[in-house]
Amino acid sequence: MSKSNPKINQYVEENKERFLEELFELIRIPSVSSQSQHKPDMDRCAEHWRDLLLKSGMDRAEVMPTKGNSVVYAEKKVNPKYPTVLVYGHYDVMPPEPLELWKSPAFEPEVRNGIIYARGADDDKGQTMCQVKGLETAIKLDLLRCNVKVMLEGEEEIGSTSLEAFCKKNKKLLKSDYILVSDTGMLSMKHPSMTTGLRGLCYWQIEVTGPNHDLHSGIYGGAVGNPLNELCNIIAKMRDEQGRVTIPGFYDDVVELTEADRAMTEKTPFNERKYKKEIGVKALYGEEGYHTLERTGSRPSFDLCGIWGGYQGEGAKTILPSKAYAKVSTRLVANQDEKKIAQAFIDYVKSLAPEHVEVKVEYLHGGTPYLCPSDLPIYKVAEEAYQATFGKKPLAVRSGGSIPIIATFERVLGVKSILMGFGLGSDAIHSPNENFPLENFHIGIRTVAEFYARYGHDEQK
Amino acid sequence: MSKSNPKINQYVEENKERFLEELFELIRIPSVSSQSQHKPDMDRCAEHWRDLLLKSGMDRAEVMPTKGNSVVYAEKKVNPKYPTVLVYGHYDVMPPEPLELWKSPAFEPEVRNGIIYARGADDDKGQTMCQVKGLETAIKLDLLRCNVKVMLEGEEEIGSTSLEAFCKKNKKLLKSDYILVSDTGMLSMKHPSMTTGLRGLCYWQIEVTGPNHDLHSGIYGGAVGNPLNELCNIIAKMRDEQGRVTIPGFYDDVVELTEADRAMTEKTPFNERKYKKEIGVKALYGEEGYHTLERTGSRPSFDLCGIWGGYQGEGAKTILPSKAYAKVSTRLVANQDEKKIAQAFIDYVKSLAPEHVEVKVEYLHGGTPYLCPSDLPIYKVAEEAYQATFGKKPLAVRSGGSIPIIATFERVLGVKSILMGFGLGSDAIHSPNENFPLENFHIGIRTVAEFYARYGHDEQK
Repeated sequence: MSKSNPKINQYVEENKERFLEELFELIRIPSVSSQSQHKPDMDRCAEHWRDLLLKSGMDRAEVMPTKGNSVVYAEKKVNPKYPTVLVYGHYDVMPPEPLELWKSPAFEPEVRNGIIYARGADDDKGQTMCQVKGLETAIKLDLLRCNVKVMLEGEEEIGSTSLEAFCKKNKKLLKSDYILVSDTGMLSMKHPSMTTGLRGLCYWQIEVTGPNHDLHSGIYGGAVGNPLNELCNIIAKMRDEQGRVTIPGFYDDVVELTEADRAMTEKTPFNERKYKKEIGVKALYGEEGYHTLERTGSRPSFDLCGIWGGYQGEGAKTILPSKAYAKVSTRLVANQDEKKIAQAFIDYVKSLAPEHVEVKVEYLHGGTPYLCPSDLPIYKVAEEAYQATFGKKPLAVRSGGSIPIIATFERVLGVKSILMGFGLGSDAIHSPNENFPLENFHIGIRTVAEFYARYGHDEQK
Repeated sequence: MSKSNPKINQYVEENKERFLEELFELIRIPSVSSQSQHKPDMDRCAEHWRDLLLKSGMDRAEVMPTKGNSVVYAEKKVNPKYPTVLVYGHYDVMPPEPLELWKSPAFEPEVRNGIIYARGADDDKGQTMCQVKGLETAIKLDLLRCNVKVMLEGEEEIGSTSLEAFCKKNKKLLKSDYILVSDTGMLSMKHPSMTTGLRGLCYWQIEVTGPNHDLHSGIYGGAVGNPLNELCNIIAKMRDEQGRVTIPGFYDDVVELTEADRAMTEKTPFNERKYKKEIGVKALYGEEGYHTLERTGSRPSFDLCGIWGGYQGEGAKTILPSKAYAKVSTRLVANQDEKKIAQAFIDYVKSLAPEHVEVKVEYLHGGTPYLCPSDLPIYKVAEEAYQATFGKKPLAVRSGGSIPIIATFERVLGVKSILMGFGLGSDAIHSPNENFPLENFHIGIRTVAEFYARYGHDEQK
């Protein structure tokens, strides 16, 4: 049974006013990466982080240029024999608009009923502060038995455009054993959890052409292939009666769920009635033989995101249209290969296309899935840290969404990431009135400190 | 072998300048039914037709009110023992826009290279003049052995809105044995033809609802039914591998093609290479076992006219959309019942709808198919009239399009229509530079006169 360290609790308690004020100083800099008028704020925010990292006990910190917004890099070298972690976070935030929906100004942080309200309160200034202040705590209490590097980017909200090139260029500098990230959520304070999976993505556009112009459906109907009907035929053939995707080879590389994974699903709280009510459906639907949490977290999916063609106005227009389009996406899971699936889909669509229409498929973009094995030693250490602060082991949850940069780290730096997220579903990230409860802020700092109080210590015994 | 009557040829030759000037007077009245500023022109045009019908030898002619534009009614009673035909035509025309594409003004008729150019030159002032001047010729040459009624409406181009009520109210006045209509085309001057079939129509809109708002395709994808995918599934199930519609009972009432019908198809000129080239397709597609002309004329069809839902913009948006829609149409053939098919489709779609989405079907509108048996005695008389003027029997062609009022006549008045159309595919009806060759105008008048020179004559022998 992992217990919390009283010194950590005391240090956090004694410094919590300062921690909050330091977070507020960061929040007051409107580092909106998608709005060019905020470019000076981006630079100011990066410099502010650099100074704060030095004050927090790092040996060295600097602002490093990229093709886009700068990266803040810092390090604390304790002993070359110790393992090294790389802390990743981002200092850019989403735009605050629509401004009129905020109860207090987005960049003037305010605590109401124990909750911090501001853009970036959670995503990702608040959560990155959990990492940095947890690290400070460990340093000041001399608990650190690993080397720590910190990398904060300024383009996460605009697709981490420059970070892959930065990582490739600075491989040696960024060398580490694991990456720590606080940029995800947990189920609830009652059900702490860590994200162990992120799905990948493939996204295509299909264009089906029949006749070279819209035809009179009376004069031609019955004798000429209709691109709308043919598009529907092609899409309908993409899944079988069991809800499985029929693209040849689609499941070949999928990591099947283990007994332990299935047991974890059973332990995860899930209220189907509430889930259905929130999205307004009478019944759920997915691949046979899997729980909803597995369908979204551990199994690939196939969805049309859009479809269009022909007449969409009021009433009737009797045409046999020339063109039909669809936006098609799959979410991938480990170890599906984005490039392989991208091509397999194109080949399959072509094989389904009848000769009386012309079918084009364009691959728009994609992302690699990520899976963190929950039996990694460092994962076990993180679990113990959660146990110390929350009083229970975190659940391992695979998220249906994608954070492409995590898979990029694995591919480029060859390192697994541990996703220690302290946010809640109610934090309204990306929305007006983004917030982060003080309770989460403090337990986040303490959990990170407890992590450092354990990680690397065994090796010195 | 049916021969032409030299007196008819002589009368038409001697009067053709006047006939043309009479047509021009009609054309100069811009009777555009869809544009309210032309309401006075509608009245003027109806009155002009009334006067012209009297001048053309009718006993009586009048303008009769309806809920919309007036109907011009005229009659020539020869002998109560003789059979009676009702001539149907329309005096309204399509709007002339876009004006800038006309080489000469739409309502100032001009003959260039033997072709009349003007709005209404063919549809339907020119063609109705073929009927009326052919009738005048027969009257003046004392060839008429039947009674003739004429009914010209002013709302054909806006859906014949008031005509069904007019027919119901005036059943006795309109009593006849057959209806003659010149408002269709023929294959070519070399291949004269009569239209013996018109397809009917059913038109629906389907709405599929999944979740009550667009969802994040990563967080929900794989666990929630996607209305776009489900719509595609439903549509794909509507036709089998042989291109046959799978709606239960769909083909139950379809009049199957006879050996004679099949032989007529073989005789009808059809250039598949040219047909494909004109619409830009590599291959044709339709119900197995039928010729293209049969697929469009004698077999029902099933086509999406529109489909939409979710994201249609540039690039990618990763959503699981809430709504999907489709506009769906079938063309019907004799003796399919519009109402029965309308309901059968709704029932079938509901039976295909899975419980995880909500599916609504709205019936928008429809029309009854029409078939004129080519063994009707009056049809044989018309064939002989064509033989006299064109030197060959007309081909019987079933058109894929719909003229709903023809089926309405059969339903309300209980009378079959004979479609003696003299237009060509190149006449550009409804388009800029609508035209009608003088040759077609004259042969149309002569053919109608030859019809009267035969119809009813046997009964007096």
